[in-house]
Amino acid sequence: MLRTQTVRNILSWYEGETPGLKSNLSRLLMHGRLAGTGRVVILPVDQGFEHGPARSFAANPVAYDPHYLYELAIDSGVSGYAAPLGLLEQGADTFAGEVPLILKLNSGNSLVGAQDQALTGKVEDAMRLGCVGVGFTIYPGSDSSYDMMEELREISLQAKSRGLMTVVWSYPRGGKVSKEGETGFDIIAYAAHMAALMGATIIKVKLPTAHIDLDAARSTYEKAQIPGTNAADRVRHIMQAAFAGKRLVVFSGGAAKNTDELLEEVRAIREGGGNGSIIGRNSFQRSKAEAIALLNQVMDIYA
Amino acid sequence: MLRTQTVRNILSWYEGETPGLKSNLSRLLMHGRLAGTGRVVILPVDQGFEHGPARSFAANPVAYDPHYLYELAIDSGVSGYAAPLGLLEQGADTFAGEVPLILKLNSGNSLVGAQDQALTGKVEDAMRLGCVGVGFTIYPGSDSSYDMMEELREISLQAKSRGLMTVVWSYPRGGKVSKEGETGFDIIAYAAHMAALMGATIIKVKLPTAHIDLDAARSTYEKAQIPGTNAADRVRHIMQAAFAGKRLVVFSGGAAKNTDELLEEVRAIREGGGNGSIIGRNSFQRSKAEAIALLNQVMDIYA
Amino acid sequence: MLRTQTVRNILSWYEGETPGLKSNLSRLLMHGRLAGTGRVVILPVDQGFEHGPARSFAANPVAYDPHYLYELAIDSGVSGYAAPLGLLEQGADTFAGEVPLILKLNSGNSLVGAQDQALTGKVEDAMRLGCVGVGFTIYPGSDSSYDMMEELREISLQAKSRGLMTVVWSYPRGGKVSKEGETGFDIIAYAAHMAALMGATIIKVKLPTAHIDLDAARSTYEKAQIPGTNAADRVRHIMQAAFAGKRLVVFSGGAAKNTDELLEEVRAIREGGGNGSIIGRNSFQRSKAEAIALLNQVMDIYA
Amino acid sequence: MLRTQTVRNILSWYEGETPGLKSNLSRLLMHGRLAGTGRVVILPVDQGFEHGPARSFAANPVAYDPHYLYELAIDSGVSGYAAPLGLLEQGADTFAGEVPLILKLNSGNSLVGAQDQALTGKVEDAMRLGCVGVGFTIYPGSDSSYDMMEELREISLQAKSRGLMTVVWSYPRGGKVSKEGETGFDIIAYAAHMAALMGATIIKVKLPTAHIDLDAARSTYEKAQIPGTNAADRVRHIMQAAFAGKRLVVFSGGAAKNTDELLEEVRAIREGGGNGSIIGRNSFQRSKAEAIALLNQVMDIYA
Amino acid sequence: MLRTQTVRNILSWYEGETPGLKSNLSRLLMHGRLAGTGRVVILPVDQGFEHGPARSFAANPVAYDPHYLYELAIDSGVSGYAAPLGLLEQGADTFAGEVPLILKLNSGNSLVGAQDQALTGKVEDAMRLGCVGVGFTIYPGSDSSYDMMEELREISLQAKSRGLMTVVWSYPRGGKVSKEGETGFDIIAYAAHMAALMGATIIKVKLPTAHIDLDAARSTYEKAQIPGTNAADRVRHIMQAAFAGKRLVVFSGGAAKNTDELLEEVRAIREGGGNGSIIGRNSFQRSKAEAIALLNQVMDIYA
Repeated sequence: MLRTQTVRNILSWYEGETPGLKSNLSRLLMHGRLAGTGRVVILPVDQGFEHGPARSFAANPVAYDPHYLYELAIDSGVSGYAAPLGLLEQGADTFAGEVPLILKLNSGNSLVGAQDQALTGKVEDAMRLGCVGVGFTIYPGSDSSYDMMEELREISLQAKSRGLMTVVWSYPRGGKVSKEGETGFDIIAYAAHMAALMGATIIKVKLPTAHIDLDAARSTYEKAQIPGTNAADRVRHIMQAAFAGKRLVVFSGGAAKNTDELLEEVRAIREGGGNGSIIGRNSFQRSKAEAIALLNQVMDIYA
Repeated sequence: MLRTQTVRNILSWYEGETPGLKSNLSRLLMHGRLAGTGRVVILPVDQGFEHGPARSFAANPVAYDPHYLYELAIDSGVSGYAAPLGLLEQGADTFAGEVPLILKLNSGNSLVGAQDQALTGKVEDAMRLGCVGVGFTIYPGSDSSYDMMEELREISLQAKSRGLMTVVWSYPRGGKVSKEGETGFDIIAYAAHMAALMGATIIKVKLPTAHIDLDAARSTYEKAQIPGTNAADRVRHIMQAAFAGKRLVVFSGGAAKNTDELLEEVRAIREGGGNGSIIGRNSFQRSKAEAIALLNQVMDIYA
Repeated sequence: MLRTQTVRNILSWYEGETPGLKSNLSRLLMHGRLAGTGRVVILPVDQGFEHGPARSFAANPVAYDPHYLYELAIDSGVSGYAAPLGLLEQGADTFAGEVPLILKLNSGNSLVGAQDQALTGKVEDAMRLGCVGVGFTIYPGSDSSYDMMEELREISLQAKSRGLMTVVWSYPRGGKVSKEGETGFDIIAYAAHMAALMGATIIKVKLPTAHIDLDAARSTYEKAQIPGTNAADRVRHIMQAAFAGKRLVVFSGGAAKNTDELLEEVRAIREGGGNGSIIGRNSFQRSKAEAIALLNQVMDIYA
Repeated sequence: MLRTQTVRNILSWYEGETPGLKSNLSRLLMHGRLAGTGRVVILPVDQGFEHGPARSFAANPVAYDPHYLYELAIDSGVSGYAAPLGLLEQGADTFAGEVPLILKLNSGNSLVGAQDQALTGKVEDAMRLGCVGVGFTIYPGSDSSYDMMEELREISLQAKSRGLMTVVWSYPRGGKVSKEGETGFDIIAYAAHMAALMGATIIKVKLPTAHIDLDAARSTYEKAQIPGTNAADRVRHIMQAAFAGKRLVVFSGGAAKNTDELLEEVRAIREGGGNGSIIGRNSFQRSKAEAIALLNQVMDIYA
Repeated sequence: MLRTQTVRNILSWYEGETPGLKSNLSRLLMHGRLAGTGRVVILPVDQGFEHGPARSFAANPVAYDPHYLYELAIDSGVSGYAAPLGLLEQGADTFAGEVPLILKLNSGNSLVGAQDQALTGKVEDAMRLGCVGVGFTIYPGSDSSYDMMEELREISLQAKSRGLMTVVWSYPRGGKVSKEGETGFDIIAYAAHMAALMGATIIKVKLPTAHIDLDAARSTYEKAQIPGTNAADRVRHIMQAAFAGKRLVVFSGGAAKNTDELLEEVRAIREGGGNGSIIGRNSFQRSKAEAIALLNQVMDIYA
């Protein structure tokens, strides 16, 4: 399938990036069921690091096998698969070239109290494994946030010079951010904007609530009457914050408790102009048939 | 489209190579009209360097514009496009991700007498431009041949460690090779074998004639009764020389004077188990419509 | 002896690794009494660093001599010998090639309070000494844990690019891990999983107890009814956490107070599908005859 | 099997070398049917480069497939397998760890007139492929001989610092060496000695004739009455030239026209104290059954 | 003088080290009055850094002049002279080759509270000055101890690859070590053992008292009935901890208040199998005649 006008348009936003990076971005945008639509659904599996194996895979034990996760990503037709080193290595050869890969380069875990992550992969690994990009988490607000940003800057420079995209998980926490504020409307907009400012190719944030967290921001939101009462309006504002919509932004699940709520959120993302979803636990913790069914419902909305 | 069993089988030959290289090889084998067949047709445009612009493009002056060559490669549905740095640069951004690219890293020209080529591109360029591989010419037999082989070894190590394929143009000339011998049956088999021994991912040789060039080889060919009277048999022997057919070999045009003869050669390549053709002047020196028609006739045979 | 089907199968899990690494893994799996079984018993001697010389060797003073430790490893027929730099150096020449060696690259000691280790060897040393791999300890949970993980990532990249295996001692402590939790069922599973995610070739963990340490994990273990009342079931879950058993996991002694209890633990490891044991003090602190007798009892169970 | 006293004694000659190199030498000396005897038979397959594919493999076409050559080396129980990059790559993963590998780092071909070879592999490749050593040809006497020696010095330093052996094919030709002199008694002794002087771990020379080639040497051979009328005596002198027998020397076939003559030569090598044979065409150009039968006859003599 | 059997035996312990390092070790062991005995007395002058010039040299002001210190080392016939960069530089030319030199590469001073030292010399300096080895202090237990160990590892690799010995001052302090524990019996044994594990060629520790410092060690010392009531027994245990006496260990003064007590200590070191003494202030703070007399009394005991 040849690139669509939609995809050509998206690539045009990334002026100044190398043809190699655009080629890899194109591979992501032209893969799977959403190929050519400018929307993406990505399967992320970093929960093993974040929460441990049982909390991640006990609900669907076949998912302990890394090959299963590759197969889920391939058979469901999602746009890409993002995971830490070990998970990508165990399958990279068997499934070489079958799904765009994003190597998550840093990882946190629940045993450590600090709001930080360890570098657990390298740009060289991403090239060796044939990835289209690298992933990196920053925690704006935390004590480690400036260090994380500086690591991101180094990694981003290395990755882009080799034609790899940088996908940034921008998750504010700590510092002046309250617990509720971690998904606050102003905070998520801020998080998306900082990722864009740091040169992220794709930005990953949480779906915001209507809560405004920073006192300093509240008067602005009120004075400018930024619409935020419904989810689609809030997504629209996040996209604004991402260079007037000229950076791809994908959202992870909000407060959804069941499938209907999740699909409702997806509709809001679509309506608000968001570029797609990252759906992890909601897919790999279900049986494969249920997971594929759900992912297809999601992709039907975006298509 | 998911990888076919044919493609999976081909990838399995490249044991010990990185998943990144296999992923790029898969991209080539899964692109265009021949996707999944294990055959490829590649558009090469290095004649500008070899013979100068007028001899290359005057017959079809739109081809002076590098964008035209990208469009020809994309619109015809060939598997990939191979060219020197400047040609790929002028279009790499506009057509990012639309056709697998091979950056030719060395180039010779007609102004110089020596049987040698200059390094005119680097592995870093190939990454910056989003290529699936690099191309390199060696002239086994020439005074420069050992130097060229050593350059290839360096380039190959760099390219492969970054997941890029190495496509080797193995064109014997000079030394003990007579002019007629440059397409001799024994010489082409030797050329393919040496490229394989040097770790080439894809081997590019000329379609051989029935001529045996080396006295030392003649008795072997006679004693072993290696069939060589028709082109398909000769292709079959070349494939043998390429690790019993476990390396991809593509052929450039032989003595074909017209379209019928060219298609006859393609049929012989197919029948002999060759993996495809490199078709340059026969395509870009015709009008676009004629070129696409010819390329499709060729691909119809391979499909 | 030629590789068994069992060993071939194990090597196939390590897809994407170099033939050099697989060759070294094969050397370990094809050495000694357990050659070809897919199980290994490794003699580790890092207690001198950890607890000082007297606590390590006073019970069997001949063990102060590094040659004795080599002889114990060779004469008992264990699969490999793992130790810090000085111990391997003093014998590497005399016993060159007689037993697979693993150079432990970091070491802690009892004089320091911090939960950290010092880098006391380098990948270059491992090559100079003819090792099949390098060993590295991480303390997930500790304040130094992210630094240790980043050191591991660097070392792992260097080691693997030269064909050496990475053996990871994954010993949670500090942070949110209680003292009892250091051998907790959920914590050990988590430790094994993180080592796998970081690309460990062989994972070394402690034999877990039935204790669940993290509140966040308890409900998962209960809801999913993960069997954990006997040791074999717990080993089975640890293997699940190690990529559905596709990474080699070896266990160090649990609470065993005597030989019978130790053999009982070995039977549980075997029954649960674990790949073997690391047996240090229980061997080198006994007389050589007793040590060899014990190691053979252990290997009889695994054989 | 534990190292024999014979092997320990051989290792002791290589004083000053790293334990890593001795460990790899030990692997070669302890592999296959001749394990522990201090003798080796090595399968070399560089004829494809030297003479082209048909002259190498047409007599036994299954040998076009690199896997066949691995299987021949493994099934016959020879001590090691030496070949250029491509041949080792195509099988290094499938047969990882099953036979000691020597990567031939330079290669010549019959299309070129010059007495030189190209660097076609790197020390990094040897490590990636899990080799025990690297091979390198020098042509003492040729116009390129000093360049070749300098390349050898560089390679040897790199290889040895990583624990790899250096196997030197020392083949005088050109310069003051007559055609007959290439296998002359004085010339082969000189060739072996220069390889030893350059730090070769294993020396590979041709079986010498009784011919004395250099006028300057003739009087010495006559005055000192160096016995050279039968092959065993000549081998004994070659061993003298290799540091009084303290370097391993293996011989390639002499003038043998048939199996009986070849076995006669092997008996002479054994009687003269040579360390073994390199047997290429005489093995892979026969059917597998015949090749294994011949190799076993040879190994029976050495055992 | 030719090397004695005693020295040959000592060199044999350092298996795997380069001939260059052994050559330098031999130079130390074959120099001065103790040449060939396997014992050494070394003159160390790092007190200027440690305690300032007046506390070091005011008692014997000629010692402010670095040439005096060289002359003391040469005229007394000690085995070697160890000092920081400046002291060695001022005299290295005048006395080139007259006494084996050890460049102390790190140094602490009394103005700083932290238990750490600064790198004040480099391996390149040691080569430039013609040293036989480099010296390095570690403070096991201190907050900086792991950093110091990592510096030592780097320096040791550099030094040894250039044929220089590594002399390690292993002085526990801080962490779990009490003030009295700094010379505790268990602690000194531990310190010597860790230096050996890190690859020290020569280990320098303080003469231990009978005090046991670590609770965890006390029961071991009691149960194993490790003799420690007299100084010679304690030395014997330290030597055990240094690879069963296969590493050279030299001692610095204990609690000696006068010459008789000092000589008593030397007799204990000799009786316990220690390899010698480092005697600094007791020599250079006396008049030259007195210093030479004392050093000769010490060497008489060791001879």
